Amino acid sequence: MTRPDTPILDRVAGPADLKRMDDRTLAKLSDELRAEVISAVSETGGHLGSSLGVVELTVAIHAVFNTPMDKLIFDVGHQCYPHKVLTGRRDRIRTLRQKGGLSGFTKRSESEYDPFGAAHSSTSISAALGFAVGRDMGKPTGDAIAVIGDGSISAGMAYEAMNNAGAEGRRLFVILNDNEMSIAPPVGAMSTYLSSLYGQEPFQKMKSLAEGFESALPGPMRDGARRARELVTGQGGESGSLFTALGFDYLGPIDGHDMGQLLSVLRSARARATGPVLIHCCTVKGKGYAPAEKAADCGHGVSKFDPITGVQAKSKPNAPAYTKVFGQALCDAAARDPDVVAVTAAMPSGTGVNIMAERFPARVFDVGIAEQHGVTFAAALAASGLKPFAAIYSTFLQRGYDQVVHDVALQNLPVRFAIDRAGLVGADGATHAGAFDIGYLASLPNMTVMAAADEAELARMVETARGHDTGPIAFRYPRGNGTGVAIPDVPQALEIGKGRIVSEGADVAFLSFGAHLGEVETAASMLALQGVTATVADARFAKPLDMDLIRQLARHHKAVLTVEQGAQGGFGAQVLHALAAEGAFDKGLAIRTLTLPDRFIDQASPADMYADAQLSANDLVLAAMRALGRDAKVVPLRA
Amino acid sequence: MTRPDTPILDRVAGPADLKRMDDRTLAKLSDELRAEVISAVSETGGHLGSSLGVVELTVAIHAVFNTPMDKLIFDVGHQCYPHKVLTGRRDRIRTLRQKGGLSGFTKRSESEYDPFGAAHSSTSISAALGFAVGRDMGKPTGDAIAVIGDGSISAGMAYEAMNNAGAEGRRLFVILNDNEMSIAPPVGAMSTYLSSLYGQEPFQKMKSLAEGFESALPGPMRDGARRARELVTGQGGESGSLFTALGFDYLGPIDGHDMGQLLSVLRSARARATGPVLIHCCTVKGKGYAPAEKAADCGHGVSKFDPITGVQAKSKPNAPAYTKVFGQALCDAAARDPDVVAVTAAMPSGTGVNIMAERFPARVFDVGIAEQHGVTFAAALAASGLKPFAAIYSTFLQRGYDQVVHDVALQNLPVRFAIDRAGLVGADGATHAGAFDIGYLASLPNMTVMAAADEAELARMVETARGHDTGPIAFRYPRGNGTGVAIPDVPQALEIGKGRIVSEGADVAFLSFGAHLGEVETAASMLALQGVTATVADARFAKPLDMDLIRQLARHHKAVLTVEQGAQGGFGAQVLHALAAEGAFDKGLAIRTLTLPDRFIDQASPADMYADAQLSANDLVLAAMRALGRDAKVVPLRA
Repeated sequence: MTRPDTPILDRVAGPADLKRMDDRTLAKLSDELRAEVISAVSETGGHLGSSLGVVELTVAIHAVFNTPMDKLIFDVGHQCYPHKVLTGRRDRIRTLRQKGGLSGFTKRSESEYDPFGAAHSSTSISAALGFAVGRDMGKPTGDAIAVIGDGSISAGMAYEAMNNAGAEGRRLFVILNDNEMSIAPPVGAMSTYLSSLYGQEPFQKMKSLAEGFESALPGPMRDGARRARELVTGQGGESGSLFTALGFDYLGPIDGHDMGQLLSVLRSARARATGPVLIHCCTVKGKGYAPAEKAADCGHGVSKFDPITGVQAKSKPNAPAYTKVFGQALCDAAARDPDVVAVTAAMPSGTGVNIMAERFPARVFDVGIAEQHGVTFAAALAASGLKPFAAIYSTFLQRGYDQVVHDVALQNLPVRFAIDRAGLVGADGATHAGAFDIGYLASLPNMTVMAAADEAELARMVETARGHDTGPIAFRYPRGNGTGVAIPDVPQALEIGKGRIVSEGADVAFLSFGAHLGEVETAASMLALQGVTATVADARFAKPLDMDLIRQLARHHKAVLTVEQGAQGGFGAQVLHALAAEGAFDKGLAIRTLTLPDRFIDQASPADMYADAQLSANDLVLAAMRALGRDAKVVPLRA
Repeated sequence: MTRPDTPILDRVAGPADLKRMDDRTLAKLSDELRAEVISAVSETGGHLGSSLGVVELTVAIHAVFNTPMDKLIFDVGHQCYPHKVLTGRRDRIRTLRQKGGLSGFTKRSESEYDPFGAAHSSTSISAALGFAVGRDMGKPTGDAIAVIGDGSISAGMAYEAMNNAGAEGRRLFVILNDNEMSIAPPVGAMSTYLSSLYGQEPFQKMKSLAEGFESALPGPMRDGARRARELVTGQGGESGSLFTALGFDYLGPIDGHDMGQLLSVLRSARARATGPVLIHCCTVKGKGYAPAEKAADCGHGVSKFDPITGVQAKSKPNAPAYTKVFGQALCDAAARDPDVVAVTAAMPSGTGVNIMAERFPARVFDVGIAEQHGVTFAAALAASGLKPFAAIYSTFLQRGYDQVVHDVALQNLPVRFAIDRAGLVGADGATHAGAFDIGYLASLPNMTVMAAADEAELARMVETARGHDTGPIAFRYPRGNGTGVAIPDVPQALEIGKGRIVSEGADVAFLSFGAHLGEVETAASMLALQGVTATVADARFAKPLDMDLIRQLARHHKAVLTVEQGAQGGFGAQVLHALAAEGAFDKGLAIRTLTLPDRFIDQASPADMYADAQLSANDLVLAAMRALGRDAKVVPLRA
């Protein structure tokens, strides 16, 4: 029925359709799939480079393995756009990362072809091993395949998983997608090591060997696989010795853009493996799209763009990004104070420490995707007398939580935590939300916790942290642009544990912690239209609390509302504990703690996400009116 | 002045005294030091086996390196007793792990010879790298030496640190103390790999090679060190390839009880290293004390004992340990339900899952010291349809916190977290306290959080968790023995989100979460002596809260006190948030949240630690009286 010139991609309703195609057709399908991804992402923005790098690999895996019975797990998951197109989501691919649309990552609730969602790195091998055990215990699941990048495999968690998988000896497949690139150029010894493997075997030689590998080997399967590896690598077992030391059979390196080679090696591995197999697959991030291949970050994360020219439609912001303000303030602090050093976990530009690295390269340490190590390393830097800033996103600092407790807080070492991406973050969705840091930090003895209401406050908090030598201190700030306030050239340190009154009213008091202050001020203006006057205070500190300020607000207002861009158990909880302890509720106090709700919020614009979270200015107005016992209504401001 | 027959140990005021001793004297000193450690621990109890295993190594390090200018960092730190004796703490060594005495671990606040404290595993290489950077940036610190066990090096954090240290290329020393034993026999591919290295080189051959190594090599230092390694290992670079792949020079394996060999290799390494060096040192846990060498756990943790016979003075408990009750209940659940599986991170007997492992060995997974992997592995087991119990101590689950958020809670996968050692734990002190889990779990959407008031409740919570398939669930319980209540043979599941009234009174209500219930009941009895009657309720759930119960308590009492064995931001915070949200404080409610204080509590008996934390029955009485606005006094119960 289909005419011969119909695009091959139009004939793919699901992975089963790939099984009927010959190798040449699959190669052609890859070209069409690549064009489809470029076209879709040009409309939505997103993780272009990583998705383009795995087009052939994704096609080959779906052609060889039997998803969704076989469990295909993409590490991080941001390279899954071709996978989504092939697995029944092509009609929605242009809703990627939009409100109500497809997630930019794999997501269990979205498709049976996403058996284990991700977004944080290095979880895939653990997940694959879990499915392999489930299969071996009789659950209806087939093979488990983890696809993991060379950056992700440098994290300790991936090593823990390989260590366990190697010992378990169960059949599973780890495909190392080695593009010599995570978000930033990779660091660490593992990266050097992978490069050395890469150098051992030119692709040309590889190809014929890999094709021979498939049919040449009789005998017991496990021995066969091992001999096959030796044959393929031509190294008699030395190649891939780090992986073989951990109990994996090593296959590779292979050319991840050569469909014939990919299919041949995957088919062989599938036919023969009895234990864990690592397939080392070399790819090019941004492959097949010149503007991405040429970009310094290989098109890692892009805005909407013109597919012909590759020019991205980046809107001119009215205010600098918080990240940039932090980076500049840190660099300035480093210029004034030779003891200032910085630690990043594979995110030099994401965190803004690249600004300092340009001027003081020897004082910025990129430890790789290794938050556990990074935090303890920073603790020892502090113990040696330096002033380390550990710049780690809120959601990723969760990876180093025990180290914050055990190495930093317990030893009372003055590590400065610069916590970017606090609160809801927009298109990256729930997995990247910085929802929990206030609670998990403020509950720790010795810790000081701040949040910046605007970019000038952020600059002052950098200076406050620099000068704070008596214990650990953290400051959080959101993704996105500041409010446009002037940033002081030489920021003054804040007084520890002191907030400020932003504007005074008589009826209700908002005690805001962090970057929701603008929304709170809007709410105060809206309340004024209803004859309700609100005091707006900026707490600045969740720990230690400014109890004088809090008592004053409680004493002089009919209701007090705390506001934070974080989950329950954080700032509001600290305020409630402190007030309860001094009996402030005994005679009555109308207090409300406005926090993120007790559910995860799907991706949308940050404003839409906060509306979803019932933290919009409208919601604040309603909450204030209810707390005052009045009719809850909203009178909108004029535009 | 000193007579020649004076013990050598008496001549050691500090490590400097070791520098003046010849190798034979140092060997003799080791024998005396071993006897001193055995004698001291026979009085205090403690981590005997690991300390005995490193006696010679500790002497050799202090003889060769220049502590405290050089930074010696013991991983975990429980093997530091010989180190404490040599570094000015001999006069207090018999106060180990006692109230007001020496910590059972290294501790910065205790001595300048403890530059970086520990207790959780696998932090030492990160710390050593931090000090090495400090030194290179001009801070007054010398060499950095990490001593890490073969169990600890299997954790991802150690790998992250090696990956970073190998790339940094700075001079630092990692001494791998390989006793083929962490607490339990080691698991994982790394362990197999280390055994293979161990097998390569018999000690006899090693010794002469190592002695030759010292003087034989001219030429540039780095190259020299590399050639030296090849010479020592006799493997032309293949040996230790996992470590060399990560950028370390590898020396070993050497006999960690041969003083001559130790001194020779350490001196050589110190003289020649320019980059990171791994010295693979094989020791015997419990070395030199027959009862420890013979014990299954090699005398890992012992009670007071008779130094002649080694017989430990273990008191007969009146009630079974919570750990054992959990282990038995889990095993019973596994017998009833073939989908029940268990995950432990190198603590099969510490967590009690060994009881299940004896009967169902294929359904218990020891993943090694790898909480990050363990949690995500459990998430995938749940995704495959199994019912995983992840049995991890409260303080160690901090290591897998991001995985709990990102892989379990976000995906709403029914992992059952069995959280032992919740609250204060006694002799292990602040580093092992389970203080934060209520807060870091209850703030997560989808999570159910329980705490057991006694061992019968614990058994019911195991069954509740087993049957809870709709999302993750956690239950916490303390270290130590239960209360002696009868444990049901077939425990009934609890209704999710429902607490219970334990006893009724009229004046004040205690809402207790978890194992402090006994202390709360004592306080209620004490209050009765003053004519104050108290309702005692067991919340059972911190999430979801039993709001009917909480409202009832608030409505019918003059004051409500929540009680928990955890930090601020946990159960009490959840109660406060919920009550504030429904306006319960508007008209007045005398509520107090009794939690652990905002400081770390040093080791003592649990009862003394809770008294220190102001959570004794006396403190509860005083808090209740104050909340009622009455004179705060305590009338003691008759003995």
